[in-house]
Amino acid sequence: MSVKIFLDESEIPRQWYNIAADIKTKPPLGPDGKPLNPQSLAAVFPMNLIEQEVSTQRWIDIPEEVIEMFYRWRPSPLKRAVYLEKALDTPAKIFYKDESVSPAGSHKPNSAIPQAWYNKQFGTKMLTTETGAGQWGSALAFACSLVGLKCKVFMVRISFDQKPFRKTMMQTWGGECVASPSNDTAFGRKILQEDPSCPGSLGIAISEAVEAAVSDPTGKTKYTLGSVLNHVMLHQTIIGLEAKKQLAKIGIKKPDIVIGCAGGGSNFSGISFPFAHDVINGEEITIIPVEPASCPTLTRGIYTYDFGDCAGLTPLLPMHTLGHNFLPEPIHAGGLRYHGMSPLVSQCVVDGLMQPRAIAQLECYRAAIKWATTEGGIIAPESSHAVAATIQEALKAKEEGKEKVILMSLSGHGHMDLMGYEKFLSGKLEDHSLAQEEIEKAKKELENLPQIA
Amino acid sequence: MSVKIFLDESEIPRQWYNIAADIKTKPPLGPDGKPLNPQSLAAVFPMNLIEQEVSTQRWIDIPEEVIEMFYRWRPSPLKRAVYLEKALDTPAKIFYKDESVSPAGSHKPNSAIPQAWYNKQFGTKMLTTETGAGQWGSALAFACSLVGLKCKVFMVRISFDQKPFRKTMMQTWGGECVASPSNDTAFGRKILQEDPSCPGSLGIAISEAVEAAVSDPTGKTKYTLGSVLNHVMLHQTIIGLEAKKQLAKIGIKKPDIVIGCAGGGSNFSGISFPFAHDVINGEEITIIPVEPASCPTLTRGIYTYDFGDCAGLTPLLPMHTLGHNFLPEPIHAGGLRYHGMSPLVSQCVVDGLMQPRAIAQLECYRAAIKWATTEGGIIAPESSHAVAATIQEALKAKEEGKEKVILMSLSGHGHMDLMGYEKFLSGKLEDHSLAQEEIEKAKKELENLPQIA
Repeated sequence: MSVKIFLDESEIPRQWYNIAADIKTKPPLGPDGKPLNPQSLAAVFPMNLIEQEVSTQRWIDIPEEVIEMFYRWRPSPLKRAVYLEKALDTPAKIFYKDESVSPAGSHKPNSAIPQAWYNKQFGTKMLTTETGAGQWGSALAFACSLVGLKCKVFMVRISFDQKPFRKTMMQTWGGECVASPSNDTAFGRKILQEDPSCPGSLGIAISEAVEAAVSDPTGKTKYTLGSVLNHVMLHQTIIGLEAKKQLAKIGIKKPDIVIGCAGGGSNFSGISFPFAHDVINGEEITIIPVEPASCPTLTRGIYTYDFGDCAGLTPLLPMHTLGHNFLPEPIHAGGLRYHGMSPLVSQCVVDGLMQPRAIAQLECYRAAIKWATTEGGIIAPESSHAVAATIQEALKAKEEGKEKVILMSLSGHGHMDLMGYEKFLSGKLEDHSLAQEEIEKAKKELENLPQIA
Repeated sequence: MSVKIFLDESEIPRQWYNIAADIKTKPPLGPDGKPLNPQSLAAVFPMNLIEQEVSTQRWIDIPEEVIEMFYRWRPSPLKRAVYLEKALDTPAKIFYKDESVSPAGSHKPNSAIPQAWYNKQFGTKMLTTETGAGQWGSALAFACSLVGLKCKVFMVRISFDQKPFRKTMMQTWGGECVASPSNDTAFGRKILQEDPSCPGSLGIAISEAVEAAVSDPTGKTKYTLGSVLNHVMLHQTIIGLEAKKQLAKIGIKKPDIVIGCAGGGSNFSGISFPFAHDVINGEEITIIPVEPASCPTLTRGIYTYDFGDCAGLTPLLPMHTLGHNFLPEPIHAGGLRYHGMSPLVSQCVVDGLMQPRAIAQLECYRAAIKWATTEGGIIAPESSHAVAATIQEALKAKEEGKEKVILMSLSGHGHMDLMGYEKFLSGKLEDHSLAQEEIEKAKKELENLPQIA
């Protein structure tokens, strides 16, 4: 039995899977509370991506040039975690899709490259975006270097200061990275005038990135987002589509359990949507999005309309949310600190296709250490949530004496996240459980926004 | 044409290639100036590794259990650098062996794992070592976690302070990492008493690691080294042996040029020795070890007996050296800042099997940026030396209009080395050329040591 299952480059999927063809979604709403006119997004996004955002076509062709750029690391390896299986003494077979092998170190380039490519086709000259932990900003800078676009990333100042090397990565790929709030936008200047030492927030960074895009008088600057939106989920399905082919190669018809970490949903949708398709068609597969106990959007949040950002500038999205004013604890899985969730993932949960689970930080770090000392790699704190749930399921399979097949997505490496490991190993990390009153507060605030019919 | 060429796990080489069978080497000398008795190393190394160190058997079996540990990432991919080829508009075909995919991020585990395994077989309970930049210390901690040995790494204090996350990596794998000089050894305490703020050196760290090994009254603690020694070069040949099989798979009988960076020689010997074997047997291949212009051991050093460490504690080795008192400029390719060279690599150069080349730091960083914006990955500053030479050769092939096959070893990723990129990108790096008087000084000092007959 092989530890690594590769696909030839010729076997890479040629189409993305669009789950919007198979589930009933609610429309996003404009500031007037009415369903959003796609045209109204044209100042921010190119029309070819807006078309993908609203498409209900089940299979969408991946452009050949995008596939050729993917060959740097795709198809990514599927690996069997034989060393972890042995350490757990479990009858379960654990497979993981290793997305850490991309040049940017995570699954994020799966969408950054097509977004950059479609923008290039459309005539865009420059892309802006915001980044928190830095994974998305790095991936976009990498993608822009490949297709020949300028790239400007607004990075939340507190992260910018704590992780200076993320900026260096972006610069290595020719991208510009500024701390947000910055002096480069009117909104940033206003904030800095009020509070020169403002640590920034994702909401402020989004506002600056959008302003930088729409204020370009040539109209050649567009904005990008690395999660939450439908077209991002679409692009990420290449993960699960490849995994299916790889499992088939070794004679496995279907996994029993599919696991991924979930913040905004980009990695999780990637591994799970192609299998959710099978569940819709009657297959029995347990699909588990794993979120931090301190930011339990799917397990304890409210399913309603809410803003995608903290500043209330975006359209209203139908999703599980803890309220756009919710500020999660500063856990080290920065990519999972999001108040909302991809509307497509939320709809799947509402439809009963998925069984979300929340796990606290310390259990996740213990899982990451177990992973490092068995499988070897030092993984991202986000990915450690998937590993923690995988260990739970593998031990359950052992208890039940069942030879289950578990498929997990490893979203990225943790080489830029060693600060969290350092704090965990020196006993400085704690678990935070979210107070119920925070959720009650959010519930009240959300009552003032439009409700899902 | 595929970008990535994989081997099945069943195709992994089952034997290492020992070049000592095919070249005439001079013996190391003991402190008395006489050829070293292998037994005298027994306080420091286990006998099974000492046997490998002095062996002249051409092919040495790789233990099955070592191979099973390798499957986490080996056989490593051979990749064709099609994106760089296109950017250079060269007729050359550039292939690179990607050793950055190991859990520790470099080729170092190729020797760390067998060294840990042989020690475990021998009854060793704990391994000690020194580390400069941290690559070897990380690899050894990883290897020890796999076989179940304690691991203690003495890390040069200045690196320890500059790269705190290397320590975190080692701790994640269960290893102990202390700044050297430390209070844990008599030698360290002596140094600290004289100079409490001593920044340390590789020489001091070696002394402490050896003392920590030999002073264990149970005799169950041994010392390990990640480069220079014959058995380390032996273990690394798996790189080139795999590359040969991978080239054969796509119908390439031999490369025209083989390139690797060279500090102590571990990565370089790995990619090149199997091809040097072919050169010995009449094949025409240009083999290029690439070193920093500021530490030009092979291109400007003296071939003579010298100590392996800076403190003069090790046996005398026949090698190219800049003198054991030579302190290279603090360039960012920490793994190439070594005054000497593997005796086996030195002998190959003396025998005319290899054509060493020195390249200055700025050209290497420019090559690394070109790599990141074409191939994608952010590579180690050490590896950038190999890339710079590869670009030189690819452009030469273009001038000559020849479709040459270039094979390069990519020794590791640069995720822990972004400080150097940051300095380069902000214009703070300079080139240092070594003054001839430094070499004259070394020559004089080396005259007091035994000479090669």
